[in-house]
Amino acid sequence: MTTFNSKKVAIVGASGYSGEELVRLLLSHPHAELTAVTSRQYAGQSVAQVFSKFANHPRAKEVRFSEPKAELLAKQAQTVFLALPHGVAAEYAVPLLQFGCQVIDLSADFRLKSTAVYKEFYAHDHPAPELLAQAVYGLPEIHRAEIKKTTLIASPGCYPTSVLLPTIPLLKTGLVKPTGIIADSLSGVSGAGRKVEQEFLFVECNESVRPYGVPKHRHLSEIEQELSLAAGTEVTIQFTPHLIPINRGILTTLYLAPAEHFSDSARMNAFGEKLSACYQQAYCNEPFIRLLEGKALPDTKNVAGTNVIEIAWRLDPRTGRLIVISAEDNLLKGASGQAVQCMNIMCGFPETAGLV
Amino acid sequence: MTTFNSKKVAIVGASGYSGEELVRLLLSHPHAELTAVTSRQYAGQSVAQVFSKFANHPRAKEVRFSEPKAELLAKQAQTVFLALPHGVAAEYAVPLLQFGCQVIDLSADFRLKSTAVYKEFYAHDHPAPELLAQAVYGLPEIHRAEIKKTTLIASPGCYPTSVLLPTIPLLKTGLVKPTGIIADSLSGVSGAGRKVEQEFLFVECNESVRPYGVPKHRHLSEIEQELSLAAGTEVTIQFTPHLIPINRGILTTLYLAPAEHFSDSARMNAFGEKLSACYQQAYCNEPFIRLLEGKALPDTKNVAGTNVIEIAWRLDPRTGRLIVISAEDNLLKGASGQAVQCMNIMCGFPETAGLV
Amino acid sequence: MTTFNSKKVAIVGASGYSGEELVRLLLSHPHAELTAVTSRQYAGQSVAQVFSKFANHPRAKEVRFSEPKAELLAKQAQTVFLALPHGVAAEYAVPLLQFGCQVIDLSADFRLKSTAVYKEFYAHDHPAPELLAQAVYGLPEIHRAEIKKTTLIASPGCYPTSVLLPTIPLLKTGLVKPTGIIADSLSGVSGAGRKVEQEFLFVECNESVRPYGVPKHRHLSEIEQELSLAAGTEVTIQFTPHLIPINRGILTTLYLAPAEHFSDSARMNAFGEKLSACYQQAYCNEPFIRLLEGKALPDTKNVAGTNVIEIAWRLDPRTGRLIVISAEDNLLKGASGQAVQCMNIMCGFPETAGLV
Amino acid sequence: MTTFNSKKVAIVGASGYSGEELVRLLLSHPHAELTAVTSRQYAGQSVAQVFSKFANHPRAKEVRFSEPKAELLAKQAQTVFLALPHGVAAEYAVPLLQFGCQVIDLSADFRLKSTAVYKEFYAHDHPAPELLAQAVYGLPEIHRAEIKKTTLIASPGCYPTSVLLPTIPLLKTGLVKPTGIIADSLSGVSGAGRKVEQEFLFVECNESVRPYGVPKHRHLSEIEQELSLAAGTEVTIQFTPHLIPINRGILTTLYLAPAEHFSDSARMNAFGEKLSACYQQAYCNEPFIRLLEGKALPDTKNVAGTNVIEIAWRLDPRTGRLIVISAEDNLLKGASGQAVQCMNIMCGFPETAGLV
Repeated sequence: MTTFNSKKVAIVGASGYSGEELVRLLLSHPHAELTAVTSRQYAGQSVAQVFSKFANHPRAKEVRFSEPKAELLAKQAQTVFLALPHGVAAEYAVPLLQFGCQVIDLSADFRLKSTAVYKEFYAHDHPAPELLAQAVYGLPEIHRAEIKKTTLIASPGCYPTSVLLPTIPLLKTGLVKPTGIIADSLSGVSGAGRKVEQEFLFVECNESVRPYGVPKHRHLSEIEQELSLAAGTEVTIQFTPHLIPINRGILTTLYLAPAEHFSDSARMNAFGEKLSACYQQAYCNEPFIRLLEGKALPDTKNVAGTNVIEIAWRLDPRTGRLIVISAEDNLLKGASGQAVQCMNIMCGFPETAGLV
Repeated sequence: MTTFNSKKVAIVGASGYSGEELVRLLLSHPHAELTAVTSRQYAGQSVAQVFSKFANHPRAKEVRFSEPKAELLAKQAQTVFLALPHGVAAEYAVPLLQFGCQVIDLSADFRLKSTAVYKEFYAHDHPAPELLAQAVYGLPEIHRAEIKKTTLIASPGCYPTSVLLPTIPLLKTGLVKPTGIIADSLSGVSGAGRKVEQEFLFVECNESVRPYGVPKHRHLSEIEQELSLAAGTEVTIQFTPHLIPINRGILTTLYLAPAEHFSDSARMNAFGEKLSACYQQAYCNEPFIRLLEGKALPDTKNVAGTNVIEIAWRLDPRTGRLIVISAEDNLLKGASGQAVQCMNIMCGFPETAGLV
Repeated sequence: MTTFNSKKVAIVGASGYSGEELVRLLLSHPHAELTAVTSRQYAGQSVAQVFSKFANHPRAKEVRFSEPKAELLAKQAQTVFLALPHGVAAEYAVPLLQFGCQVIDLSADFRLKSTAVYKEFYAHDHPAPELLAQAVYGLPEIHRAEIKKTTLIASPGCYPTSVLLPTIPLLKTGLVKPTGIIADSLSGVSGAGRKVEQEFLFVECNESVRPYGVPKHRHLSEIEQELSLAAGTEVTIQFTPHLIPINRGILTTLYLAPAEHFSDSARMNAFGEKLSACYQQAYCNEPFIRLLEGKALPDTKNVAGTNVIEIAWRLDPRTGRLIVISAEDNLLKGASGQAVQCMNIMCGFPETAGLV
Repeated sequence: MTTFNSKKVAIVGASGYSGEELVRLLLSHPHAELTAVTSRQYAGQSVAQVFSKFANHPRAKEVRFSEPKAELLAKQAQTVFLALPHGVAAEYAVPLLQFGCQVIDLSADFRLKSTAVYKEFYAHDHPAPELLAQAVYGLPEIHRAEIKKTTLIASPGCYPTSVLLPTIPLLKTGLVKPTGIIADSLSGVSGAGRKVEQEFLFVECNESVRPYGVPKHRHLSEIEQELSLAAGTEVTIQFTPHLIPINRGILTTLYLAPAEHFSDSARMNAFGEKLSACYQQAYCNEPFIRLLEGKALPDTKNVAGTNVIEIAWRLDPRTGRLIVISAEDNLLKGASGQAVQCMNIMCGFPETAGLV
């Protein structure tokens, strides 16, 4: 049995849903010791007091929320998760990296390579452009090798994860065209964070479904960056998010144009086999990707509470299109679970540690 | 004040959700007298006993469920609604029309002009092809004039209504291309009817969202028939239905290709004005269509319990696409409400009678 | 056909859920003309703009929200509904009554006869004690005669309605003891109003059920006042409200001590018949009370969207207790529907006008 | 580090919700090896095929469903969980015990000491009365010592667990009277099992809350047996279950009569301290009981997905009553989690193994 040195870890901004999930995952992680959590709102209280649902965990009474101070955090932890709004995250990342910490940032601050695109989508100058070169987009199935070597992870957005993992292998192998891609996404309400706004009240969301952010949602920027990288050409996509009355989960339906026409069923079947082979080759050993075969289609209830993303695909002989569907838990594979997966890779722990 | 002769009306197959909604609407309709409801399962019981929620209605104790018999129904009612499975509906429509009744069929039996398409999508020969010529597709905003003159209405499906009303004016005016249309739809669970199957249990639907019927759902047949009619050319579309955990409501997001390119914002604005004008001209006097302006986007909770469909649209300068979104109550504008709207037209009642 | 003079009506504070329901009911009321609605937040906007779901109503574009000013309101309307917080409502009631308006107040300000009890439960001095003598508790099935004669209605709370209607006939006839009464209530989230607080966010309410206000909820004060009146002796009850993840509806389970012991089934059946007779006599002609017989038990889904309260009861031979269960829509029979019912009575309209 | 011998375990009847939870828990249990699962319906399929959500677990493809045969099971496993209907469970328990297996039965078959009470509540003769003497009611916090020594566990019902754990310490210490106890319970829909019946369809449960089984639910029998044992006198209680639209969770509100009157606040506070001391003494070291202090009240969302039961209590000076509230996950602490907790005790594993 290999043994691992435990790492001391901290969470900055642990009062939202992603932060809460990080607390849960790290409290029970076999190789991480949660030494600090910060929140201006909850400073002074223990984890057990703030999140009563964790109160039975042996360490929940010991770990107390504190004010976020980079210098102190650097003494308390080797790896620091930032669950802060964009713009604010960079303020902590800069000193923490200087003090020698590994930083895993769940905000958008280090996801984009281009400061111009950042400004276009986030409406302010990039707060720390000097760090962009070293930041790695934390999608392990795509960037595992770079994740191993970096000290700054930009953990992907929830929607981007649901779009990128099903699409990248198809673009890399050229099985689908890089043009005309449509992603239609449905998200549970926790995706909005713990924002206390009228539109997220129970009565406003229950028995309701509605689109929002049409046609230019912020997540487009990182989706298009990563798809362009995979395709080797600039990719512009259509993306429509919708809010549905579930707590957790994103289901994304992708409409893609196959690179080949299939005028008869023999050609369609042949193309279908190429698709299967492509996905199998890309993901058959991935512990958190479930390729659905047979008649099964993705369902958020099958991934809620797990770090797994489900992927299925169908060719439509009537339209010649390829439809790919993915389902994930927006707070786990779409946020905190993936961030812990990145930590495992960075720290040399088994990739599934604390996630199954 | 104009007065109207009341019509005696009957419902065949009133045990499902659509039938129940018909009972509710017709019990309170100012110009209709509900004289008969049938259901094998409930024969002998009163409406008050079967649907306890209607028990306080003065007539709910008088009207009793009976076995469905066409000859008897023809004596009891001048207008008969059929809320039966496809294939079965035609068996009643044939004799009822012969006995001189007006028939409003909520099944798929008379929606398609082509018996070949019927067989392709419903997997059996058409049960009464001789009636297809006289059947009118009961979408009042599109076929009002023909509805007035016929005695056989094929009431549209719930998904088709949500796709057709937003799309037909655009195709008729040539503002969008008839190719490459994608309709991504989200339906509440009542859309599946009162089917007692495991996949529709509360625990299987709650906290779940999933696609189904990918890529060839039956409703494609009537959608494509009506779109082709509007476009004047054969239209093939991509349609993906999803099941979401709400009781009532369909939200459809349509991806359309504008007939014009808009390389600059002036052209885009000009095209946007054409779109507004198109919708205004088509629907500004329609009592059950709500064109959303400003920032509002459709939301099923704003139409649940009403016969209204909400429609909004957005041009995307990044992709050159038009996105149109609609929301309706699948049991009302998508089924029973629209059927009553057709009755009102057929019978010369005010079109909104019993629906507001 | 009797014709009625229409009354001009206004709503003060129409931005919450009860206010919105009043808008809906009064826009469609056959004998009321909604001439004014007020809301500081929405002043200047039309009803159609604020509540897009009513935008298709012919008058929704004409009626505009204004700042609440009593003098102006008194010129615009003969009957004014107050959907305001307690304490604030009285500020409008005083001048409106002086100007000769009928006032129907949905707050708690005029529900209690005792200013001391008011202060105990609402933590401030009563703002208009001089009006208490003329205020009538607006429970039509109990106080119909007084409602007819007054100009100031204190419309009951949602929980009190669900407790009082099932219990008062039993206390009046002495069939149950006035001691040891327990009311265990479950309320949908709209009962909290449109309060933008973290605890009412979708994610905090969905997949959650929790008690609150244990053991001394404000509604106890009016419940005990009215029960004491019915019993002719002071009644103290146990009341536990719970929040459940539905939009609308209150289900109350009452535990009562029969005045008689039933040591054998003959006596129990005899007592059961007295109970039935008691309820029948009290409510058999009430249009909004549904006494369930046979095996049926109340279910909020059968009353949601209606002004009906369902009541059922069971004797337990094992414990000698009587269990009575009621279900209502908290926004209708528990608030705005009942308020309109009172208006109908005050104005001499048919009691069910605008409510079915 | 202590090491444990793994046990081979099997599940008979693994197609329902409790069975599915057992599969999940046992696949990941550090000291159990799941060697067999049975289901007539799924025989021949792998766990990965039947429960696609577990498909990523390394062993989910290896373990296949088989027909349930006691002799074979006894060769495959040392400990067998029975997730079968009452009446059927005993048929397997008898031979499995003879073959030397440990049996943990989740049905009601071995919960009652009295065959007469069994027949009264389950309407058939007890199928294996000879085993009742050795069966232990599997509530670890109450019967831990006996659980250690037996080979036949009768795992408690979901409602009984939610009533017994909060009440037993109070009865044992005599702090509350054994008379007049009322338990008002709210259960998520998974409590009904995976029964494909109309009343459990999504549309019938969503936006609905309703009581059922009033006034004599089967679970009364085991509740009263265990309360009587704790009180040392025969206890009869009032119990009303309600169905609410959540997947998982039971919230129970208990109304109890303190053994002391508290006419002033000093006495009430003194009694309150006795209550706290009682609960602390009974449960302060229990890993799965969370005694809530301060203002917090139980909430099913804080226990869903865990084996924890939350308990809080309030004294009401107005009525002299004690109100105790509990929340648990009906499938975990109310069923499969508790069953695994019993296995851990029986097998000498750490009691929390596989449950945190």
